[in-house]
Amino acid sequence: MIPLSDKMAEPPSAYDQLTKHLGEIAIVGSIGSLLHWDQETGMPHAGGEWRAEQLAWIANRQHALLTHVRTRDLLEAAETEGNLTSDAMVNVQWARRDYDRATRLPAAFVEECARTESLAHESWKAARITSDFSIFAPMLHKLVDQARLRADYISEQAASPYDALLDLHEPGATTAEVSALFDTLTPQLSELVELATQKGSSLPTLPDGLEYPVEAQRRFNHVIAEAIGFDFGSGRIDTSTHPFCTRLGAMDHRLTTRYDTRDFTSSLYGVLHECGHGLYEQGLDAGSYGLPVGSAISLGIHESQSRLWENHVGRRLDFWEQWFPLAVDCFPGLLGSTPHELWQYANRVQRSFIRVEADEVTYDLHIILRFRLERALIEGDVEAKDIPGEWNTLFQQLFGQQIPNDSMGCLQDVHWSMGGFGYFSTYTQGNLNAAQLMQAARKAVVTLDQDLADGNYSSLLSWLRKHVHSQGMRHVPKELMQRATGEPTATTAYLRHLKQKLQFV
Amino acid sequence: MIPLSDKMAEPPSAYDQLTKHLGEIAIVGSIGSLLHWDQETGMPHAGGEWRAEQLAWIANRQHALLTHVRTRDLLEAAETEGNLTSDAMVNVQWARRDYDRATRLPAAFVEECARTESLAHESWKAARITSDFSIFAPMLHKLVDQARLRADYISEQAASPYDALLDLHEPGATTAEVSALFDTLTPQLSELVELATQKGSSLPTLPDGLEYPVEAQRRFNHVIAEAIGFDFGSGRIDTSTHPFCTRLGAMDHRLTTRYDTRDFTSSLYGVLHECGHGLYEQGLDAGSYGLPVGSAISLGIHESQSRLWENHVGRRLDFWEQWFPLAVDCFPGLLGSTPHELWQYANRVQRSFIRVEADEVTYDLHIILRFRLERALIEGDVEAKDIPGEWNTLFQQLFGQQIPNDSMGCLQDVHWSMGGFGYFSTYTQGNLNAAQLMQAARKAVVTLDQDLADGNYSSLLSWLRKHVHSQGMRHVPKELMQRATGEPTATTAYLRHLKQKLQFV
Repeated sequence: MIPLSDKMAEPPSAYDQLTKHLGEIAIVGSIGSLLHWDQETGMPHAGGEWRAEQLAWIANRQHALLTHVRTRDLLEAAETEGNLTSDAMVNVQWARRDYDRATRLPAAFVEECARTESLAHESWKAARITSDFSIFAPMLHKLVDQARLRADYISEQAASPYDALLDLHEPGATTAEVSALFDTLTPQLSELVELATQKGSSLPTLPDGLEYPVEAQRRFNHVIAEAIGFDFGSGRIDTSTHPFCTRLGAMDHRLTTRYDTRDFTSSLYGVLHECGHGLYEQGLDAGSYGLPVGSAISLGIHESQSRLWENHVGRRLDFWEQWFPLAVDCFPGLLGSTPHELWQYANRVQRSFIRVEADEVTYDLHIILRFRLERALIEGDVEAKDIPGEWNTLFQQLFGQQIPNDSMGCLQDVHWSMGGFGYFSTYTQGNLNAAQLMQAARKAVVTLDQDLADGNYSSLLSWLRKHVHSQGMRHVPKELMQRATGEPTATTAYLRHLKQKLQFV
Repeated sequence: MIPLSDKMAEPPSAYDQLTKHLGEIAIVGSIGSLLHWDQETGMPHAGGEWRAEQLAWIANRQHALLTHVRTRDLLEAAETEGNLTSDAMVNVQWARRDYDRATRLPAAFVEECARTESLAHESWKAARITSDFSIFAPMLHKLVDQARLRADYISEQAASPYDALLDLHEPGATTAEVSALFDTLTPQLSELVELATQKGSSLPTLPDGLEYPVEAQRRFNHVIAEAIGFDFGSGRIDTSTHPFCTRLGAMDHRLTTRYDTRDFTSSLYGVLHECGHGLYEQGLDAGSYGLPVGSAISLGIHESQSRLWENHVGRRLDFWEQWFPLAVDCFPGLLGSTPHELWQYANRVQRSFIRVEADEVTYDLHIILRFRLERALIEGDVEAKDIPGEWNTLFQQLFGQQIPNDSMGCLQDVHWSMGGFGYFSTYTQGNLNAAQLMQAARKAVVTLDQDLADGNYSSLLSWLRKHVHSQGMRHVPKELMQRATGEPTATTAYLRHLKQKLQFV
């Protein structure tokens, strides 16, 4: 029934078969993403139990496809058939890495980890609510053991087991390099925080007692998201408790945010942040969806995009000058305010206990604390049971404040309870990368600042599309930053950015 | 690693393995439902192409599981192992029917049908927009051929090929029985339509020029949906172009509606209708999700539930008396109206060309027309190319009006373009069943009318839960109606209901 053409007569190459196979894995993965997205945005409470069954089934199918002997055979055939383009080689190499990693972990270990993480997540929730670390301590101990074991399984020539965990989220990152960056950063950030918090006695605020209806916030955010380039023809924004960005298909990008009716800037900056992630994903080659050349390279590069739009675009004074009329149209109570006041409010600096509520200047100190502690955990220098004491001591050193209880301290973040070690540092790498990319874009696009002041965001987006988004996984982050900015990730541009801002706010 | 208990030592029975296998098929099916739901409610336009890949993959997995040799082996083992409870026998028997049907259709035929339906759907859309039947005619011809072939494959001892198609949607229904019902109904409905449309010269309307904001409609509908018993803990209501009800898991029910800002009753009756479907699904045994005893028996019973809440509850005068204060609270412009006026508006009768816009009295004439035509198509008495002429003649007979163009006539419905033959009659069966169930409930629950007048809907819902919802697929529709109302589906109760209503409106 299939007509034979000349093209059909040639059997498909091993590489073509491999990409088709990877395409099927992408289909399954994207279905899993929809199941997750729906769970966070709309699923009725009682749907949870069945949703777990659906997710388990999809995860099982995905793992089975990835570790199938067919993957190995196709990889071997593609690796030996020659004549691969450079893009094809990129795809084969990353697919090989994924296959090797997946098959190096024994199935029983993967299952045991999944079980531990599920139980640990529940015990973390209980511990956080009651601020009782002892509930979580035994699970954290087990999670650390498993993370070490995972590092052992997947690492080939890593200098430290922590290197292997960093590499999971940030390919090519090493403990030594990240440590060196953070060591440079720490004293200078501390100085800046000191400077910023001494400056004024009272923090800027929004006008007293105003309410910002959710519908008006939606309209405000939508117009701005569209203006910076987010394509609503292939995306949408929904509501969830924890904001995120996910991709449900080649051309299907979902962002979420949450609304505070007493502070409209909270959802605005959330949307700008997630839009940064979304713009990166929308800038990947959709035709290569599911293949490494069409995928984001790392969390540190991803976070650079979100932080760039949130902080380097959205926290400029001229951003507020540009959007003030729309703000007043959406929230008439702002009529008596000025763009300058809103800008000051958006840039207020304050030492606080909670990372997700931290401002741009204090944020990285929260990350540095976590990085040091989890490195020590993984390298065996600190025991899980000693985390509260270690956390509080380090917080006192970095912030000069005393942690009131563990919920405000070492129990505040979800990451460890889900086995996510080696993840936190990518947040700060994202901040560093964002400033460095912004500096390079400013050098390359001479009109950049004027464009942004005019509300014309396309010159910046085009530069990012070319130097970051369209690159996919062709270069590891270090190399991508070198090619885009002339040097690997450093602290210079970021510190200059913060200092400049503090001079004027 | 699995601790051995006495229970574990016994190997699971073939029946237990079969239900586990059916559970997996249900997981896959429910994932497909989520993919469809999301496509209709929120998917960005550009996501369509990848969504088709996801749906095709899921459909393929579902079919593969259903027709797998393991299904056959487990069925044979369960059928012979004995000691089955009556519920287990119900499950095995329906699973056997599904397996036989699925395997009786050659894979190439199934694929060819899917391809034709996809093409036919597109050609139908093009034909409808331009009102040019000739675009759709060749595809309709092919669809009819395939429907006949499908009937041949699946029918065992059907008297007419049309019987086999009816049975797909309404187990046990026969062409002869449905024809007999419809022949009784037709002259009496025509008389009622004549009576109702002669009665008044002008149609009741809503107050002039009022706007009904979507948010206020949402609130109004939500309160009423909750009042009649829809559980938002395991369900939600979203917006879509074509309203529907779907189930994404054991405890996850999704309804949709659409909003007309000039007529709030449109979304209200849409929600009451879909809530009727949703209440049926929420009343099935969630613990048997994916098994026949936990599934709806037929479209005609399903439609009886939606029509019952929409028409027999929602179109009562005391319904409007009960909800008038809330209506005024949501839509202050209604302050000058009366419940009686809204009730009259909700019960206006008018001959019209479009089925989905038809009122309660004229609705079934639309169905009877379609039933006659598609039966003639399948039995070979009418050719696809002659449908427009046949349609228009029959419409003239039934409605005394001339069809202005095929978009307002034979091209208005989507069903045939998707291969859905034998489906339409279940709408009228639903209307008949609704009236008959309502009559039986009224007899059994002496306080029923007072309860409804008081806005207390639980006595009606409890009766339906017991006699319809909780029954699952234990009895075919004919038998279910016999047990619940004392006789199989008839026209008496329905005609009495319409006549009574027309006396008073």
